[in-house]
Amino acid sequence: MAKQSAQLSEVFYALADPTRRAIVSALGRGPEAVSVLAAPFAMALPSFLKHLSVLERSGVIRSHKLGRVRTCELVPKTLTPAQRWLAEQRATWESRSERMARFVETLHQEDLSRAKRQPRQR
Amino acid sequence: MAKQSAQLSEVFYALADPTRRAIVSALGRGPEAVSVLAAPFAMALPSFLKHLSVLERSGVIRSHKLGRVRTCELVPKTLTPAQRWLAEQRATWESRSERMARFVETLHQEDLSRAKRQPRQR
Repeated sequence: MAKQSAQLSEVFYALADPTRRAIVSALGRGPEAVSVLAAPFAMALPSFLKHLSVLERSGVIRSHKLGRVRTCELVPKTLTPAQRWLAEQRATWESRSERMARFVETLHQEDLSRAKRQPRQR
Repeated sequence: MAKQSAQLSEVFYALADPTRRAIVSALGRGPEAVSVLAAPFAMALPSFLKHLSVLERSGVIRSHKLGRVRTCELVPKTLTPAQRWLAEQRATWESRSERMARFVETLHQEDLSRAKRQPRQR
């Protein structure tokens, strides 16, 4: 449980940066060599590699080296717990909103029936 | 666009901590006074307040003070872009997986028809 929570923190942290999110989006279309992946970013390679390392540590991507070419790929299942966590929060909050709406509706109906029993004087 | 991306980064950063996620979960059940919210956490109040301040800066929660009581509440709509971003990544990746599966299936069918045309010699 603690381990899952720590992993979830790392995934959210990895996604808390526009460059890293752009890398995830790019890798969603398929594995890519680091040099190709880095090309569209106006950024020095060491900075870019740091972003890759944060993503790799979180498990969101993995890489392997063949000869002199390092290739990165997305590990989509690592995003699932983050998506699930957000969906759970929405479910909690929406069920609360529905209870609130029903409560307000009940009060409204009570007001209406009270108004019928005691018609306003003209 | 840049502003939306910066907000998304702040939201993901806010969620990259187990205490802050627990606060979001608690507030999903309804607004709460800071003192009540802090009670279950084995943490000094200043540290707790720092977490609240990260959440408030990201827009995920807001607070107001009435007399001496500060009350926090969730702002659920701020979680929507994070959920949408994750869903988009899944959609990209799943459409790629489907294309890959169809491609592999095509290769397999071609192999089968080639095997039929050229039966293996006994």
